[in-house]
Amino acid sequence: MDFSIRDAVQEDMSQVLDLIQELADFEKEPDAVDITVDDLIKEGFGTQPLFKCFVAEMNEEIIGAAIIYDRFSTWKGRTVHLEDLIVKASMRKKGIGKALYTRVMHYAKDKGVKRVEWVVLDWNTNAIDFYEKSGATLLKDWYLVQMSEKGLATFVNQNV
Amino acid sequence: MDFSIRDAVQEDMSQVLDLIQELADFEKEPDAVDITVDDLIKEGFGTQPLFKCFVAEMNEEIIGAAIIYDRFSTWKGRTVHLEDLIVKASMRKKGIGKALYTRVMHYAKDKGVKRVEWVVLDWNTNAIDFYEKSGATLLKDWYLVQMSEKGLATFVNQNV
Repeated sequence: MDFSIRDAVQEDMSQVLDLIQELADFEKEPDAVDITVDDLIKEGFGTQPLFKCFVAEMNEEIIGAAIIYDRFSTWKGRTVHLEDLIVKASMRKKGIGKALYTRVMHYAKDKGVKRVEWVVLDWNTNAIDFYEKSGATLLKDWYLVQMSEKGLATFVNQNV
Repeated sequence: MDFSIRDAVQEDMSQVLDLIQELADFEKEPDAVDITVDDLIKEGFGTQPLFKCFVAEMNEEIIGAAIIYDRFSTWKGRTVHLEDLIVKASMRKKGIGKALYTRVMHYAKDKGVKRVEWVVLDWNTNAIDFYEKSGATLLKDWYLVQMSEKGLATFVNQNV
């Protein structure tokens, strides 16, 4: 396996979007991806980018990606959020995910953040095992809460 | 109840930190708060602030706070994260939390984000009821995962 990890460039975003869709399929939410390549370029490569992306590349093809951004904990301070860690299905079990994950952890350590955090589906036992073996901790007593764009519009209209 | 909601200023951060500690006590993590007033000022009021804070004020005292920041969903796009929504214990059940929450939702709507998201402890039924009534959705099949600063150092040392 001769792959390399590098910072993503704008030209990678089309292949990265394919990976994002692949992850959504895997997570049983195939219709959830509303974002476009243009959105990824606009939000990731402006003067105040909303995310940073690492890609795994082999034979000029993008076979994996990690997408991260800064967050802030009012208990700990500056943290890094790992939004997505994706390896192309046909390329799994070859150390690509571990290499991307390791790059993210080095990046976070170099930035001096107080924590790296992310979420995982409760049935994704392969990922959970990997995260726990790496030294991460699962917090099982918290729920994610989301107000959708539609819910937001309704709430705001009802609470002027 | 004659309180007002406004953007926080640096001089509020000492009282906001008291509220953050109060929330940590309520969430049964009294020793979790490592952050200082100086950290809050540095990270919240620089040229690229890591968070935005709204406060509820009554008689020149800060009685509540909401702390938010931008996030990014690779499915939806730009989102707002609600990190903390805190009302001083002696001031609860007076509509202050609802007023802060409403301000956050208006802010998010005005920014045109695709979602507002946050987390809640599974035993905090008062908060859960409030969130659900407001139109938010609980996602119960995800776990939070955290790599602590110490775990990060260990992992990075073992995976150079």
